[in-house]
Amino acid sequence: MKPILGVTMGDPAGIGPEILIKAISDSTIRSQFHVVAIADPSVLAQANALLGNPMELVTSQAISHEVLNKLTVRQLLVYPSGMPLGATVEYGKVRALYGKAAYDSITCAIDLAMQGTIDAVVTNPINKEALRASGVIHAGHTEIFAERTGTKLYAMMLSHDPLRVVHVSTHVSLREACDRVKKQRVLEVVELTHKAVTSLDSNPKPIAVAGLNPHAGEGGLFGVEELQEIIPAIETAKGMGISVEGPFPPDTVFSRAMGGDFSAVVVMYHDQGHIPLKMAGFRVDPNTGKFMEVSGVNITLGLPIIRTSVDHGTAFDLAGSGLASETSLLQAMRYAMRLCPHTD
Amino acid sequence: MKPILGVTMGDPAGIGPEILIKAISDSTIRSQFHVVAIADPSVLAQANALLGNPMELVTSQAISHEVLNKLTVRQLLVYPSGMPLGATVEYGKVRALYGKAAYDSITCAIDLAMQGTIDAVVTNPINKEALRASGVIHAGHTEIFAERTGTKLYAMMLSHDPLRVVHVSTHVSLREACDRVKKQRVLEVVELTHKAVTSLDSNPKPIAVAGLNPHAGEGGLFGVEELQEIIPAIETAKGMGISVEGPFPPDTVFSRAMGGDFSAVVVMYHDQGHIPLKMAGFRVDPNTGKFMEVSGVNITLGLPIIRTSVDHGTAFDLAGSGLASETSLLQAMRYAMRLCPHTD
Repeated sequence: MKPILGVTMGDPAGIGPEILIKAISDSTIRSQFHVVAIADPSVLAQANALLGNPMELVTSQAISHEVLNKLTVRQLLVYPSGMPLGATVEYGKVRALYGKAAYDSITCAIDLAMQGTIDAVVTNPINKEALRASGVIHAGHTEIFAERTGTKLYAMMLSHDPLRVVHVSTHVSLREACDRVKKQRVLEVVELTHKAVTSLDSNPKPIAVAGLNPHAGEGGLFGVEELQEIIPAIETAKGMGISVEGPFPPDTVFSRAMGGDFSAVVVMYHDQGHIPLKMAGFRVDPNTGKFMEVSGVNITLGLPIIRTSVDHGTAFDLAGSGLASETSLLQAMRYAMRLCPHTD
Repeated sequence: MKPILGVTMGDPAGIGPEILIKAISDSTIRSQFHVVAIADPSVLAQANALLGNPMELVTSQAISHEVLNKLTVRQLLVYPSGMPLGATVEYGKVRALYGKAAYDSITCAIDLAMQGTIDAVVTNPINKEALRASGVIHAGHTEIFAERTGTKLYAMMLSHDPLRVVHVSTHVSLREACDRVKKQRVLEVVELTHKAVTSLDSNPKPIAVAGLNPHAGEGGLFGVEELQEIIPAIETAKGMGISVEGPFPPDTVFSRAMGGDFSAVVVMYHDQGHIPLKMAGFRVDPNTGKFMEVSGVNITLGLPIIRTSVDHGTAFDLAGSGLASETSLLQAMRYAMRLCPHTD
């Protein structure tokens, strides 16, 4: 049976709704998995219209293989989430109402996945300001998913094949990131990474662990976290049968990963993973100074459900133009499918 | 008058001597500047022989435009530095004798530049272990140059066009790097960067300053160094008439620099600059797992003399094979030439 992916709409005023329609219009997608849009139907209808109505939207609260198998490649099932906005979306605007609609789309998708109605959740970008304005206290998607699924141990993986990075910490100051490099946490992240690469790859390469300090500390000369925390975590993981190596000097390990040496790199802080990933996946047009290619997938490891996401923001300046690229969303959907255990 | 570049030989057992010969064999080089090898003549003769003697080595302690202008493109002036080794070099071996010979080549080049006999120094890679074994206490090239020229304020620039990064700190632990993000130091590095890009580019783009923390601190949410140290430094620099912008989120500023938005990026710690630079300039062969392309230039800003360097190590495993690439050395020589004030 094909897995069923639930895709959220993201902030209605962003590019989420239109890249969702564009991605689903790619007919090769449907041969591999079913897609259900978890969205306000009128928001998706507006995005569909601005693209020339490539899809026929079928609104239904009944999600099943039986229903989905009957759809043509031009039909998209929309599962209505939350209260309808009831008005035309103004693209590029920060509104509490839009933040609430985006939040409802997420929580609805999480609940459907926890019930087993859908096999994975793929998320579109939200606007944190709109989210806050609507009264939601969470910092972002990951925190919403963790709380609603009761998850304590999780980690953020970013992927732009062949480079994958998994973070020991993310949205904390660099000083706090140094404090969070502890044996127990590094070991947890190595274990989460091992589980993920085993799902993703039929014959996974070793996992690399980056050091925290320049030259991975050069034997204690530039910092002791490698000796006191990271190496003991690696040794314990090896003892558990995990194929893991390191700690590697952080400045060259990513070139090696790009060359295919590793299934993933465990990184010690936000920018240690984000810098190489965005160097690999983001391109700026020298003429306009604007990002012309933004590719990559964000995967939350450790949840009881599968969740992948685009690796970019709402791009309010592009929303409504129909020009935004669906590349990252397609990558996120394909990644979600690969993580589903029953993709035969 | 063409500038005169003095090129050191690096560790005799490394790839320095042979890439020096290979680089000089490139006949286009001689049209732009003169080259003097500062080396043990027998070490260079051995490298020349293993490459099939492409050059005729002319040993002389007289360096002048008159002498250099008379050389053919197949002749290379070698200025003898230190005591001759007096024996065939064993490639790939760590020897105190080799460390001493490499050190003598460096100090000799510095002295010639300080006297004004040569216009710039371009350095080849040394082996730190051999250097230590020979009794030299300095951590590397940069420290030797700083001490011998009496320089207190300096900074390391790495370049792989169009990406240039200049470091607020380098070989210290990440915790100490956080401590070193101080207004005065950030301002000094911005000033040194401004001076360098003004020499290098006829119409320099603005300088970008990266934040220390994820998202450049997101208004103090993830760290206060941006608010307390970096922004005040940027404001002061702007008041001095320097075209500088930031602080930028560290994960996307390099993609923008790669797109040509900035003349250089001031970075807060070793790996913040080294990771994107090596993502841009290093390539690993997926079949062998070995580095197949290593390009980039290392420039010490703040010295009273011009010093550029290759951006790679001694590659002991390749030394003596004649296979090492001279790309980075040629780039370092061209950079040195661009930094010379009298290149007309």
